[in-house]
Amino acid sequence: MELHITCIPGDGIGPEIIAEAKKVLEKTASVYGHKIIFEDILMGGASIDVHGVPLTEEAVAKAKAADAVLMGSIGGDTTTSPWYKLPPNLRPEAGLLAIRKALNLFANLRPAVLYDELAGACPLKEEISKAGFDMMIMRELTGGLYFGERKTFEENGVMKAVDTLTYDENEIRRIAIKGFDIAMKRRKKVTSVDKANVLDSSRLWRKVVEEVAKDYPEVKLEHMLVDNCAMQLVKDPAQFDVILTENMFGDILSDEASMVTGSIGMLASASLNDSKFGLYEPSHGSAPDIAGKDIANPIATVLSAAMMLRYSFDLDREADAIERAVKQVLTDGYRTGDIYSQGCEKVGCSKMGDLLAERI
Amino acid sequence: MELHITCIPGDGIGPEIIAEAKKVLEKTASVYGHKIIFEDILMGGASIDVHGVPLTEEAVAKAKAADAVLMGSIGGDTTTSPWYKLPPNLRPEAGLLAIRKALNLFANLRPAVLYDELAGACPLKEEISKAGFDMMIMRELTGGLYFGERKTFEENGVMKAVDTLTYDENEIRRIAIKGFDIAMKRRKKVTSVDKANVLDSSRLWRKVVEEVAKDYPEVKLEHMLVDNCAMQLVKDPAQFDVILTENMFGDILSDEASMVTGSIGMLASASLNDSKFGLYEPSHGSAPDIAGKDIANPIATVLSAAMMLRYSFDLDREADAIERAVKQVLTDGYRTGDIYSQGCEKVGCSKMGDLLAERI
Ligand SMILES: CC(C)[C@H](C(=O)O)[C@@H](O)C(=O)O
Ligand SMILES: CC(C)[C@H](C(=O)O)[C@@H](O)C(=O)O
Repeated sequence: MELHITCIPGDGIGPEIIAEAKKVLEKTASVYGHKIIFEDILMGGASIDVHGVPLTEEAVAKAKAADAVLMGSIGGDTTTSPWYKLPPNLRPEAGLLAIRKALNLFANLRPAVLYDELAGACPLKEEISKAGFDMMIMRELTGGLYFGERKTFEENGVMKAVDTLTYDENEIRRIAIKGFDIAMKRRKKVTSVDKANVLDSSRLWRKVVEEVAKDYPEVKLEHMLVDNCAMQLVKDPAQFDVILTENMFGDILSDEASMVTGSIGMLASASLNDSKFGLYEPSHGSAPDIAGKDIANPIATVLSAAMMLRYSFDLDREADAIERAVKQVLTDGYRTGDIYSQGCEKVGCSKMGDLLAERI
Repeated sequence: MELHITCIPGDGIGPEIIAEAKKVLEKTASVYGHKIIFEDILMGGASIDVHGVPLTEEAVAKAKAADAVLMGSIGGDTTTSPWYKLPPNLRPEAGLLAIRKALNLFANLRPAVLYDELAGACPLKEEISKAGFDMMIMRELTGGLYFGERKTFEENGVMKAVDTLTYDENEIRRIAIKGFDIAMKRRKKVTSVDKANVLDSSRLWRKVVEEVAKDYPEVKLEHMLVDNCAMQLVKDPAQFDVILTENMFGDILSDEASMVTGSIGMLASASLNDSKFGLYEPSHGSAPDIAGKDIANPIATVLSAAMMLRYSFDLDREADAIERAVKQVLTDGYRTGDIYSQGCEKVGCSKMGDLLAERI
């Protein structure tokens, strides 16, 4: 088939890791007889430098016209980069928030998996990590505090700031359905995370999730308070299959979960709308300190490309091939610096891309 | 001196652990020549059972009349207890939120410390935990999403819920001052945690914290995004001295930090207003499953009592004596079940109280 993919190399290590993902995708396409048409767009700092804004309407239009979007990473060093002298709505991250909203990417999937080969990098002690873990964080991505009204103003001489956390039942229902659908393909357990002992939005969340659960009698649903979940991720990550939660809680918990794996350079993510369309990106950031040195780990981006083939193109066989290549490269003992351990062979970003492509 | 202390035994293991804290306080008072006048009030489920509400005005008045409040824990099993059939504003936790607001307890201090003797309970691997850690989480407790306006309503046939996150500069300034004051007595580092790349309230937070920092030239201030902080607590907890943050982020991060110590049964907390008045309580919950069995760990409550002597009564010597007794009891090899490890002697709640009192 013909695959139209818009790429956002972005900032920092973004362009390097996207180059390797393209390499692996090209190889996969040639092996399985597909044709990929790539088109790059600017976003984040790269777009600010050229257009003065982190995302243009032309870029959004190009992204919309594609079948899927593959992103590297955006943003720079917040203390030294001139991008952070701009007002908040013109900074690199604003581009990311804007594209999520413009493409209606309400479902963010972040797997947190402990790879056997990298268990040594897990910060938890073996007693806990030996159980292994493999969870999917399903984060609502276009609602809540991120997109509510906000304002800063003076009242009787006192500065005041207000952000609003809003959810309606439809927003909750559609992400809950995605969560349960994914759970059906996994270990059939959903942990819905909220703060229902305090927030109205959490109480509505819980109610709607319970309604949706009725359509999935095979899936075990449990509710967990967000503070407790932050504890359980450290204490016993093996208990989780799908974690279903709202935008801000998902931001915090998915980062915590990714650190618990110890190998954030390996973690992919997908942001989906209600059709097959999605934006795929690594869970890690733009690491400006190591940009341009050919030492970044491209695996999270390559695995994001695999998720793209699976979710946006239904190319399961091809996605499997990429995931197998990743496992194989680890088994063969190759590591980038971030996941290096003694006895392995340390390789750069571009070499890692070659090794992966060879194994397709 | 004469100490007027209002106690809230509360629910679950609350009454047992409060009894042991009283035992240790009485002993301390007799050794150091003080007189304590205790008065108990009802809150949470215990108050619902008697008065139908989780906190009465009379109870608040009694708390206000005292020099300080010592609390056990409140709340029950949310799936089986009848308290959770009540509307949210009548449930046990609503009593806790109401007393925080009524007493203006805006500064919540939660130490997260790795005790040498209990390092084995830390879920992190030794490589990380061997650096040790000793941080103080300073959480704003009477603002933000917890106390903003909220509503649930129908709009064009769709249910919608809204919570509001509000801070004004004065609320931020007073907690920041407390944070820097505490840092001056510690290792002189403040990590202010926010989500300034998204929230207006976080941007105001950051601005005010920077203003306050100018009065503390000796204190090193750094800003950290909340998602990153959730990662850093697992990756390298030793980097933190004082973590300063708003209400909801503080709820999540303080629980994560307490789990990272591995011994939540040891962690105290203080909630202070702008005078010497405070409410002191263990960081753990009411553990209804083990209530009444004399197996709960009273140490967090005893250490909360020590914090009370230190912050509300300026009785540093007496607080030191209690903290020393706790260390001594651990060195002597006594453990409650939650912190038990092989080779130690397992004791119950009341026996642990005796052992502590003996060591004052
Ligand atoms: C860059 C930032 C706005 C973003 C978020 O908070 O959503 C990032 O942390 C993420 O999780 O993708
Ligand atoms: C019981 C609950 C409302 C409370 C909170 O969220 O503040 C608790 O989790 C805490 O941290 O003291």
